[in-house]
Amino acid sequence: MAEKGLLVILSGFSGAGKGTLVRELLRRYPEEYALSVSATTRHPRTGETDGKDYFFVTKERFEELIGSDGFIEYACYVGNYYGTPREYVEHQRELGKDVLLEIEIQGARKVKEAFPEAVLIFIAPPDAGTLAERLSGRGTETPEQIAGRLKRAAEESRCMQDYEYLLINDDLDSAVERLHDLISVQHCRMELNRLTAERLSAELSRYLS
Amino acid sequence: MAEKGLLVILSGFSGAGKGTLVRELLRRYPEEYALSVSATTRHPRTGETDGKDYFFVTKERFEELIGSDGFIEYACYVGNYYGTPREYVEHQRELGKDVLLEIEIQGARKVKEAFPEAVLIFIAPPDAGTLAERLSGRGTETPEQIAGRLKRAAEESRCMQDYEYLLINDDLDSAVERLHDLISVQHCRMELNRLTAERLSAELSRYLS
Repeated sequence: MAEKGLLVILSGFSGAGKGTLVRELLRRYPEEYALSVSATTRHPRTGETDGKDYFFVTKERFEELIGSDGFIEYACYVGNYYGTPREYVEHQRELGKDVLLEIEIQGARKVKEAFPEAVLIFIAPPDAGTLAERLSGRGTETPEQIAGRLKRAAEESRCMQDYEYLLINDDLDSAVERLHDLISVQHCRMELNRLTAERLSAELSRYLS
Repeated sequence: MAEKGLLVILSGFSGAGKGTLVRELLRRYPEEYALSVSATTRHPRTGETDGKDYFFVTKERFEELIGSDGFIEYACYVGNYYGTPREYVEHQRELGKDVLLEIEIQGARKVKEAFPEAVLIFIAPPDAGTLAERLSGRGTETPEQIAGRLKRAAEESRCMQDYEYLLINDDLDSAVERLHDLISVQHCRMELNRLTAERLSAELSRYLS
């Protein structure tokens, strides 16, 4: 596939199963997708691996990269920088891979501004009850943390409508396939096939006489 | 599926394999699609069946239907009317079926104006040579008729870019599946899921306190 890969933005509430979906998508279609890993200046948490969960960098290095236009988007939260390194994304797209960006709404907006051809997908649970159950079921958080995540989901839900697609994650297996179909068919978008259309038109023009 | 079906406009050069693709799509997924049959005032040709190829009606009946807003689009070519009857389309959409409209560019534009949510797909051969071969291969037309079709394809190709998607019909089997995926994923479009998004947002709002 010589065609340039797509930029796919995946956002969704904490607990919507975004991470699992993405991992499964990469496992099933390793040749077609690449996952962009964000850089951050925050400290690694227990269990987090550098280069896998995040690229953990110093504030100086991060600001150096900002200065050299090294991020396709970046933001500062609670005193820490988070950003999407440009080089990896561009390289993978050149290889024809569709690059997945797991970022939140502000980042999504910035990427869409810079790359209008990016695909914005919001992943949501079928209903709020399911989200609450999944968050409790993980058993990794205190009731206060769960309440905080649900409150944040409520806030984020106001921006859902800024996304182009809504993917309801009801069943992992079918949601993965739907996500794969959703991304794959974007390659048929006319705006990404202008060259093909022009070539066809040029070829056919010899029948005009 | 309580959700309303989509309106899917399929256009493409004569010989691009549109008819075969549509028949195969209906055969494989009879529960999901319905094919809109156009009405016309022209006389049936040998082998054409009323209600299958076209609804053959009188000029008086056609104009009566125009008067009662009975068409979602209609046009007049070489002295004959052609139109898409509204009732069938609406009924099938209400049943949740995605309705396929095999119409040409002028009709497509009119439908898109009236139904902005309609999906516009252009079906094309991989290259002009393939189109010429397919047209000759059918063995049903004179060289003059084939030349006329190729000339028309060259003219139509200028409007390809008005479509939202370009589907290259290189291999029937994979093109049918790609077309099915392309249509299916449209159901994830946010604009068609506003109610779901609003319901989710309303459910989550009780966690805001």
